[in-house]
Amino acid sequence: MEINIDRLSGRLQQLAECGALAGGGVCRIALSEADKQGRDLVVGWMRELGLEVNIDQLGNVIATRAGTIHSQPILIGSHIDTVATGGNYDGNLGVLAGLEVIACLNDAGIETERAIAVGFFTNEEGVRYTPDMMGSMTHQGHLDIKQMLDTVGFDGSHLGQQLQQIGYAGPVECGSQRVHSFLELHIEQGPVLEQQGISIGVVEGVQGISWSQIDIQGVSNHAGTTPMHLRRDAGYAAMAIATFVRELALQMGGDQVATVGSIELKPNLINVIANSASLTVDLRNTDQQLLSSAEQQLDTFIEQLGSSENVQIDSKALVRFAPVDFDPELVGLVEQNALAQGHSVLRMPSGAGHDAQAFAPNCPTAMIFVPSVAGISHNINEHTEPDDIEAGANVLLAVVLQLANS
Amino acid sequence: MEINIDRLSGRLQQLAECGALAGGGVCRIALSEADKQGRDLVVGWMRELGLEVNIDQLGNVIATRAGTIHSQPILIGSHIDTVATGGNYDGNLGVLAGLEVIACLNDAGIETERAIAVGFFTNEEGVRYTPDMMGSMTHQGHLDIKQMLDTVGFDGSHLGQQLQQIGYAGPVECGSQRVHSFLELHIEQGPVLEQQGISIGVVEGVQGISWSQIDIQGVSNHAGTTPMHLRRDAGYAAMAIATFVRELALQMGGDQVATVGSIELKPNLINVIANSASLTVDLRNTDQQLLSSAEQQLDTFIEQLGSSENVQIDSKALVRFAPVDFDPELVGLVEQNALAQGHSVLRMPSGAGHDAQAFAPNCPTAMIFVPSVAGISHNINEHTEPDDIEAGANVLLAVVLQLANS
Repeated sequence: MEINIDRLSGRLQQLAECGALAGGGVCRIALSEADKQGRDLVVGWMRELGLEVNIDQLGNVIATRAGTIHSQPILIGSHIDTVATGGNYDGNLGVLAGLEVIACLNDAGIETERAIAVGFFTNEEGVRYTPDMMGSMTHQGHLDIKQMLDTVGFDGSHLGQQLQQIGYAGPVECGSQRVHSFLELHIEQGPVLEQQGISIGVVEGVQGISWSQIDIQGVSNHAGTTPMHLRRDAGYAAMAIATFVRELALQMGGDQVATVGSIELKPNLINVIANSASLTVDLRNTDQQLLSSAEQQLDTFIEQLGSSENVQIDSKALVRFAPVDFDPELVGLVEQNALAQGHSVLRMPSGAGHDAQAFAPNCPTAMIFVPSVAGISHNINEHTEPDDIEAGANVLLAVVLQLANS
Repeated sequence: MEINIDRLSGRLQQLAECGALAGGGVCRIALSEADKQGRDLVVGWMRELGLEVNIDQLGNVIATRAGTIHSQPILIGSHIDTVATGGNYDGNLGVLAGLEVIACLNDAGIETERAIAVGFFTNEEGVRYTPDMMGSMTHQGHLDIKQMLDTVGFDGSHLGQQLQQIGYAGPVECGSQRVHSFLELHIEQGPVLEQQGISIGVVEGVQGISWSQIDIQGVSNHAGTTPMHLRRDAGYAAMAIATFVRELALQMGGDQVATVGSIELKPNLINVIANSASLTVDLRNTDQQLLSSAEQQLDTFIEQLGSSENVQIDSKALVRFAPVDFDPELVGLVEQNALAQGHSVLRMPSGAGHDAQAFAPNCPTAMIFVPSVAGISHNINEHTEPDDIEAGANVLLAVVLQLANS
């Protein structure tokens, strides 16, 4: 049994028309009118496939195909909201590949022992409402449903009201549907698979994330009249931190990455030594101890730098997610099936956050990655080749079948 | 014979009232209404002191006290325009100390052999109209008068029209008054004299300035999913340049200074590798060869960095002034007189540009620096202690007297 790539590609294309941008790509921000259109389309397909659709208080949608035994379902899930200039695959692929699995089973008239469900979760992207992965995190008990419903978005909108307005404030208690296991097929959103010419990424876990905001106070002075040794240059200190974290990541090697993507100097003039500087540091590692070590080394460097440069440096944590490990058995099952289907395979971490990480502490969870062309995502040029989509969806189908009858 | 510090301080205070800011400090931007008030006040004092006032086409004002022989005058000069949040001393001190020298000679009934003049030059600060040091540079033949009169300011105003509006489009051909020598008393605008507890800076020349704008093109990617070795991080490249120029200045030592005061990343987000970065580099040295060497080392570093980081780096020169050497004999005369008056003395370069550098190629030129409290200038908190002003003005008086009768 194989998935029908034309049907899956057709659904991806139809969903991409909800919130399509004139120049290509999609803007389907959580709980917008475009999101409502996308949700209606997907829920329509769920019903056509004969699934029992449940919508919970937070707008998470889980549609179930019954099994022959009474059981918690295997849930195939992801999200259908996008960033403001998103592509056609991020999130959508995981949901629509789930529907394709159901369609194959229906076509073949196959009943499974265990129930199989397909779901999409509200506000994974976190563009309009903070935090991201809100729907799945709340569903799995990591966030409080009342607080989430009271969230006010960057546009001033109230999440609970917005859910009602688009008709997705459902009757089901959020989190009341427990699941047997969770599977998510997703585009890599990075360049590794393409660079190595590999079809299937077997995701072993999600990198831990440490975000900090660093604010530096120095003294503004004239760039010509102030000798180097009398400077208290906040700008230099900021840039020294940026080059330090780069060196740190290279020295640590492995999965460690470090990024300074944002910096601001004041007064930001060519001939004035900056009196203040702000920058962000993004550190990620799959290993909790290594991530903590990177944070500690950064702290030590900052302390020494503040003293040697005679500037005041304040660092505060913005976000800290511990690394998430997926279920070794389920990860192994993904790998075996991918190899059995003749695909090249790479075990790898996910550098981005995904709904799957909400489920990992509570049930066997795994993810399948397929290559992103040029590693591009969160971008209208996001693309994955149909052959790769087909390969990923077939691996998903095989894993689900095996799980559902074991 | 000594200068009258109360009279000089009084004039500094009165001039500071033209364009005074509510919270302290002065805004007397070139050719503004406040500048007209300041000019009228100073020209009034010039006339009261019996000087012959000449206003040229560019609004430069030179007021002359005749000598007993027919001669080109010794010119004591500076500027009275300020930055938007300036102090009471930058420029003003040099002009009003010149008037104090004249007042002393008048009080004592002293005639000098050589004529003595006091002048102020239009738009030294360059806040409203580019370039800075416009009046003195045009007066000394480095800039074209017609072009300067046609300058359009950042506020859209036409310089020539603005000069007429405030009544300072004078009849005298700009540059027609040649001078015997040029002296400028100025606040240091840096921290060196105060830090070393020295009263008089004997300025040997002005640092050469090299400003460049560096634009870097990389590729935006996800900070989590992009391994370090696959990045084309424009932000990192910018910060590596900033830390390089700092190291370069420290390695070169001597007068070399290097500043990155301005940087901009795009998209400037915490979790996105920057696809573009712009920064400025300000390099200064009193030695032309060393300054060129610093520029070359920066170029070499940029070339290697572009290649190793796989980013496109474009560097363009914004400003390049060669270092200016003042007249060794006149510099020596300043030093001798300062020492003879019992002051502590430091030979030093000027890190900032001054009107004196326009005169240096054409006639014997020197500058006297007095300490700036905390090195602060271009700031409403700019301050110099009355004792230091008195010391500087007395050195100026002695040098002028010696020159005028030699």
